Amino acid sequence: MHSFELLSQKFALHFDVRHFPEDPATLYEPNEYFLKLGGKRIRPVLCLMGNELFGEITEDAWHVGTAIELFHNFTLIHDDIMDKAPLRRGMETVHIKYSENTALLAGDVMLVKAYEELNKISLEHLKPILSLFNRTATEVCEGQQMDMDFETMDIVSMDAYLRMIELKTSVALAASLQTGAILGGSGERNQNLLFEFGRKLGIAFQVQDDYLDAFGDPEKFGKQTGGDILANKKTFLLLHALECAKSEDRKELITLLKGNPRDKVEKVLNIYKACKVDEWAMQLKNKYFEEALKHLDDIAVISRRKVPLRELAVFLLKRDY
Amino acid sequence: MHSFELLSQKFALHFDVRHFPEDPATLYEPNEYFLKLGGKRIRPVLCLMGNELFGEITEDAWHVGTAIELFHNFTLIHDDIMDKAPLRRGMETVHIKYSENTALLAGDVMLVKAYEELNKISLEHLKPILSLFNRTATEVCEGQQMDMDFETMDIVSMDAYLRMIELKTSVALAASLQTGAILGGSGERNQNLLFEFGRKLGIAFQVQDDYLDAFGDPEKFGKQTGGDILANKKTFLLLHALECAKSEDRKELITLLKGNPRDKVEKVLNIYKACKVDEWAMQLKNKYFEEALKHLDDIAVISRRKVPLRELAVFLLKRDY
Repeated sequence: MHSFELLSQKFALHFDVRHFPEDPATLYEPNEYFLKLGGKRIRPVLCLMGNELFGEITEDAWHVGTAIELFHNFTLIHDDIMDKAPLRRGMETVHIKYSENTALLAGDVMLVKAYEELNKISLEHLKPILSLFNRTATEVCEGQQMDMDFETMDIVSMDAYLRMIELKTSVALAASLQTGAILGGSGERNQNLLFEFGRKLGIAFQVQDDYLDAFGDPEKFGKQTGGDILANKKTFLLLHALECAKSEDRKELITLLKGNPRDKVEKVLNIYKACKVDEWAMQLKNKYFEEALKHLDDIAVISRRKVPLRELAVFLLKRDY
Repeated sequence: MHSFELLSQKFALHFDVRHFPEDPATLYEPNEYFLKLGGKRIRPVLCLMGNELFGEITEDAWHVGTAIELFHNFTLIHDDIMDKAPLRRGMETVHIKYSENTALLAGDVMLVKAYEELNKISLEHLKPILSLFNRTATEVCEGQQMDMDFETMDIVSMDAYLRMIELKTSVALAASLQTGAILGGSGERNQNLLFEFGRKLGIAFQVQDDYLDAFGDPEKFGKQTGGDILANKKTFLLLHALECAKSEDRKELITLLKGNPRDKVEKVLNIYKACKVDEWAMQLKNKYFEEALKHLDDIAVISRRKVPLRELAVFLLKRDY
C-alpha cells in the first residue's frame, strides 16, 4: 500500500520523459513544453490508487495513468484557447507562446497519443478501459460546452450547474479511480462504489474551491480572494445566493453582476453572508464529503487497503486555506 | 464483389443516421449539421473495398468505416478553423455558423466518437486496427502542421512537399484500405502492398489535382483554373518550376509570387509551359499511377477480386477534367 504522496513521486518520475518524436518540431515542441510545465498529476495517481485498492499495481495501470494525464493535458491546451487564457502555471499557454493553430493541432495529436498509450495495455482489459475512457472524454467535452454556454446565460439553475461540474471535473476523477479498479480485477459493484466516491469527492472539492475563493484566508490560500466575484463567474455560492437572498439583496446582486464597482467584492460578500451562503456551502461540501466516504466504506475490501484513499480525501477536503 | 459506386451508395445509407445525442445541443447540433453536408465518403469505402479484396465484408468493416469517416470530418472541422475557411461544400463551416470555440470542441468530441466506434469491433482485430488508426491520425496531424509551416516559407524542397502530401492526404487513403485488409484476414505482405497502392494513388491524385487547377478545362473541371496560383499555394507545379525554370523566368516567377498583378495566372502559366511543367506533371502522375497498379498486381489474390480497385484507380486518375 502506498500513499498518494509516494505514488505521486513515482508517477512524476515515470511521466517525466520525452513523449513525442523530434519532427515536425513545430508540432511536437509545443507539446513537450506544455507537459514540462508540470502539474499535480492527480488523475493518473488516482488510477494507481484505484488499482492498489484491489491488488498489486499492474504494468497496465502505468499506461492508463499516462493516457489519462495526456488526455488531461489535451483538455488544458484546448481549454486555454477557448478561455483565451494567457498563463498556465505561471507560464505562457501554448496558443500564446506559439499560435492558436499550433495549440489546436498540438492538442489533437496529444489526444491521439493518449489512445496510443491505451493501446499498450493487455487485451483482456482493452475494451472496458477504452469504453470508460471514451465515455469520460465525451462527458468532459460536454461539461466544457455547458460551462461556455453558462457564461452568456443570466440564469443557471443549481441542478444544471451541478451537472456541469460533474461532467467537467468530477467524472474524470471518478473514472480515473475506476480504470484502476478494472485493472485491479474489481467486480462491477465495487467499481461503481469507487466511481461514486470519486464523483462526490470531486463535487465537494469544487464547492470548497468556490468557498475558498470567496471566504478563504488570503495568506493560507496563497492568492487574493474574490477572483470569481470579479470575473462574474457562476459558482455554487453565487447561484445559491441568487436563489435564497432576500428580494432587495437579490436585486442588488444582479446589479452588481452587471457592473464593476470598486467595492464589488465586499458588497457581494456581504450579501453572501446575509443569506448565509458560507454556512450553506460548508454544509454542502461536508454532505458530499460524507457521502463519498460512505461509498468508500461500502467497498468490499479489507479496511487497511482503503487507508490511502481516505487519507487523500481528508487531505483534500479538510483544509481551511 | 462490389464496385466503388455501389459500396458508396451502401455506405451513404449506413452513415446517414444521427450519430450524437440530443444534449447538449450547443455541442452536438454543429456536429450533426456538419455530417449532413455530405461528402464522397471515399475513405470508408476504401476500407470496405480493402476488406472485400480478401473476403466477405464483415460487420467490423462498417464500424471501422464509420470511425474513419468521423475522423475525417473531425480533421475537416479543425482544418477549417486553421485555414479560416468560410465555406465547406458551399455551406458555412462550423466555426463560422457557430463559433470557433464550438468548432474546436465539436471536433474534439467527433474524434472521441471515432474511437468509440472503433471499440465496437471484434477483440481479435482491435489492437492492430487501433495501432494503424493512431499512427495514421498522428501522421495526418503532422502533415497539416507541415502544410501550415510551408505557408510562411519561401523555399520548400520537392522532397519535403511530397512528404507533406503523403502525410496529409495519402496515408489516410492507404490506411483505410489496409484496415479493410486486416479485417479481411490478409497477411502482412498483402497488407503492405495494398497500403502502397493507396499511398501512390493518393500522390498521383494530388499531382493531378495540382495539374488540373492550372491546366484543366474550366468547363469540364467545373471551376475556374488558376486558383492555386492566385493563392500562392505551393503545388507540385510551382515547386518544380522554381527548380527547373531558366534563371530569368525563375526571377519573374518569384516576383509574381510577391504581388498580385492582373495577368498573374497567365504569366505564371507561361513560365510553367516554358519549362514544360505540364508535361512533367503528367509524367509524374503516370509514374505514381503505374507504380500503384504494380503494387495491386503483386497482391496475392485472384485477379477478379482486384477489378473494383483497378476500376476505381482508372476512374480517379484517367480523366482530363
